[in-house]
Amino acid sequence: MAKEEREKKMFVGVAWNCAAELKFLITALLFVCSLATVLQFLPSRFSFSSAADIRLCVSNVSAAVAAEAASPPQNPPPPHQQDEVLESGVIKRSFKPYGAAAYNFVLMSAYRGGLNTFAVMGLSSKPLHVFGKASYQCQWVPHNATASPAAAVAGIKILPDWGYGRVYTVVVVNCTFPSPIGHDGSGGKLLLLASTNGGGDRNLNLTDTVEALIEPPGSVNLSLYSSPPKYDYLYCGSSLYGNLSPERVREWLAYHVRLFGERSHFVIHDAGGIHAPVMEVLRPWIEKGYVTLHDIRDQERFDGYYHNQFLIVNDCLHRYRFDAKWMFFFDVDEFIFVPRKSTIKSVTDSLSDHTQFTIEQMTMSNKLCLSEDAGKSFRKWGFEKLVYRDVKRGIRRDRKYAVQPRNVFATGVHMSQNFAGKSTYKTEGRIKYYHYHGTISERREPCRQFLNATTTTVDGIPYVMDTTMRGVAPSVKRFELKMIGPRLQKTHQ
Amino acid sequence: MAKEEREKKMFVGVAWNCAAELKFLITALLFVCSLATVLQFLPSRFSFSSAADIRLCVSNVSAAVAAEAASPPQNPPPPHQQDEVLESGVIKRSFKPYGAAAYNFVLMSAYRGGLNTFAVMGLSSKPLHVFGKASYQCQWVPHNATASPAAAVAGIKILPDWGYGRVYTVVVVNCTFPSPIGHDGSGGKLLLLASTNGGGDRNLNLTDTVEALIEPPGSVNLSLYSSPPKYDYLYCGSSLYGNLSPERVREWLAYHVRLFGERSHFVIHDAGGIHAPVMEVLRPWIEKGYVTLHDIRDQERFDGYYHNQFLIVNDCLHRYRFDAKWMFFFDVDEFIFVPRKSTIKSVTDSLSDHTQFTIEQMTMSNKLCLSEDAGKSFRKWGFEKLVYRDVKRGIRRDRKYAVQPRNVFATGVHMSQNFAGKSTYKTEGRIKYYHYHGTISERREPCRQFLNATTTTVDGIPYVMDTTMRGVAPSVKRFELKMIGPRLQKTHQ
Repeated sequence: MAKEEREKKMFVGVAWNCAAELKFLITALLFVCSLATVLQFLPSRFSFSSAADIRLCVSNVSAAVAAEAASPPQNPPPPHQQDEVLESGVIKRSFKPYGAAAYNFVLMSAYRGGLNTFAVMGLSSKPLHVFGKASYQCQWVPHNATASPAAAVAGIKILPDWGYGRVYTVVVVNCTFPSPIGHDGSGGKLLLLASTNGGGDRNLNLTDTVEALIEPPGSVNLSLYSSPPKYDYLYCGSSLYGNLSPERVREWLAYHVRLFGERSHFVIHDAGGIHAPVMEVLRPWIEKGYVTLHDIRDQERFDGYYHNQFLIVNDCLHRYRFDAKWMFFFDVDEFIFVPRKSTIKSVTDSLSDHTQFTIEQMTMSNKLCLSEDAGKSFRKWGFEKLVYRDVKRGIRRDRKYAVQPRNVFATGVHMSQNFAGKSTYKTEGRIKYYHYHGTISERREPCRQFLNATTTTVDGIPYVMDTTMRGVAPSVKRFELKMIGPRLQKTHQ
Repeated sequence: MAKEEREKKMFVGVAWNCAAELKFLITALLFVCSLATVLQFLPSRFSFSSAADIRLCVSNVSAAVAAEAASPPQNPPPPHQQDEVLESGVIKRSFKPYGAAAYNFVLMSAYRGGLNTFAVMGLSSKPLHVFGKASYQCQWVPHNATASPAAAVAGIKILPDWGYGRVYTVVVVNCTFPSPIGHDGSGGKLLLLASTNGGGDRNLNLTDTVEALIEPPGSVNLSLYSSPPKYDYLYCGSSLYGNLSPERVREWLAYHVRLFGERSHFVIHDAGGIHAPVMEVLRPWIEKGYVTLHDIRDQERFDGYYHNQFLIVNDCLHRYRFDAKWMFFFDVDEFIFVPRKSTIKSVTDSLSDHTQFTIEQMTMSNKLCLSEDAGKSFRKWGFEKLVYRDVKRGIRRDRKYAVQPRNVFATGVHMSQNFAGKSTYKTEGRIKYYHYHGTISERREPCRQFLNATTTTVDGIPYVMDTTMRGVAPSVKRFELKMIGPRLQKTHQ
């Protein structure tokens, strides 16, 4: 091979022969794409930060270049202008921005909710929504553009965090197209265009394109949206965090699988709380198909309210929306109770013309036990031995709730505010929940004080003895043994 | 020229011959730099948005590449991971961030404050500071690294916005080095390293390098910091916005130039309020050297409290810190008053062992006038005709203040909380200010109701007649005529 030819091969080159303007655009695009290509090969030498940044940049730049090619040129001032003294003597001051403090949008998930509707769950910088007018557009890009049409619609933004957000707030975007979309099974993808509308810089309307959902051809099963649901009851758990008690989780699970029955399912979210001994407690129920565990530890990167619980419950709502007739939202230190002679089914049937009902709280002491349990309380279950109920009046106690999810568009922690249909809080006497606050992340025996009295006052709080839950304990223990055998009998506090 | 040679020249090329790792790094650097170079030539075809973004990206990438080369390689997860089902059946959820919602830091200015100290003024994303621990480092890079040493010190961050921030909050960073820096006249620059410390993403500590201040060799005049100040009194005005009344501004200026005297100066900040007729009113005083006008309209890009007034007053403090013995902070609808037989000098001299004193407010009606002015009120000045003082008790009225700026590190709107020395609010009987709220952005004659009474009650608010300011009007008018002639006599409301 001649020396000249070999040299030529060592050159990375491009030739052109066109107008000066296009030349520059093409050069820019070429370099951007080359950069993106090169980056694919640099996983271990580049830190996450730089690689992610560059990819974001690349996508932004590509979008900008594409937009630039399509839209008329503007003449904005160049960036990082210097202060200058004008002819009039006026000092023209400049402001020089650097870096990025928060993401515009953090996608968690997107789900189809019918023939023409989708829900997108994510986080967004809170001040963009409090002080700005961040907005969303939904675009459907068919897999095969010639077979089915593209479509775009304004996204309806729901902020379900009740004002609790921090650096980030939760955004649920409802994308409802005027007519069915991608329903012919030809596949496509849902893009979410997230626009800052000047929230961080009034000179700029930055728009990020989020690839929210990809539907491969033939992947959509439209019968899902009209079929009866797989489960009667689905539990959507909040973010679990901290040093949870395996024994308390064991008791909670056995109790609620028995309560909700065979056609129920429990979705548990691990934000760092499912350590190995807790996992041991979940495992038999996972194996029997009653529990699904989501590892959501990665959300900890983004500073939202209480481990982004509002994001998590909305993901759960939309992910399982067509899988259950009723969805329940409460915590693992709370126990749903329906009175003797009723069942969870008779209660929910009686409320079936409501989209939502809320449930009143019975607040239980987390330390007062019965004298007869003294010395052997460690052998008793939590809800069996903690039998004193706080009856202080005039306290506003949180409620928990259940919904028929097909009528719900977004959900909160204590109730949903975005749904079709009716809601009721008049469920007294039909359903309630016992709350054992502080027991779930306590790794020691909870009993601190042993009493005989049917009523008492401790630290100014009046209590009455309430053995309702204690009475259920034996049959829950038998149920657990029947279902999964003795494998959890030696679970630690 | 042979065809082959011509072809070669049309290639953009690079040849290499080294280890695979270095090859990738160099490739990345080459493309990034090429991209940056190409962008210089694209000012009009690129929108501000894309060009700025790319430059930010380029600087971030360059920094990341440099950091990568210096620090040991890490193995973080790749960006935009997909959800996956682990062997255990656990669903590992991922979160995909997009775009940027706010800048990490927006530099307004930096000033030297002595042999070894600097102040940097800017805006920063508010949640980074409320929920995160954004921090700053100051670095001094000498112009000639062999002649004088580089230095680094932690920046002391002051947040002077009193909780009023919006998307952005104001940050004053005090950079005090342990020993004199750049004092030999050899020049250098102050860098501010602004770190998010995981504020927007706990996986990343993004650090932006802000070129805060450049001192060319020989540019620093150290005698400034030990010389007596040029002015006795300097007024730092807040952001002026809206449809201001030229006539009211005219009256305010004449009044205060007379009050503060020959060794005074007024710094006015135009956030959109200095329209042409107001400019006409400022012009004679600018020409006589009493007024400096700063055009700060560009701050409107960044959503802070009241046109970023906390940023503006801090810039003014540090910019003019060594130019005046006393600095006053109040608004253009407020008039400082010292009783007959005293002067502003006798008052400030009596308070000279204090770094700061605050000034009580006399709240004046913005619509009640004297019957004797009816029909000819349009010929009278605002503070001449508005003579009814609100004497409602139990109302907390804002105070304004003055400082000896050399002892002050940052300032607020109603007082400074960061200073050395003493502060007093016990100035009653010595100095006060008359506040004509709502008159400055009212373009009509203010008198709405004409009264004779020495006391009255309107809309439940008790008023007393107070002609103190009215009494000063004739001499202020004579003073204006003497100083700048009749050129402002036909100013409009």
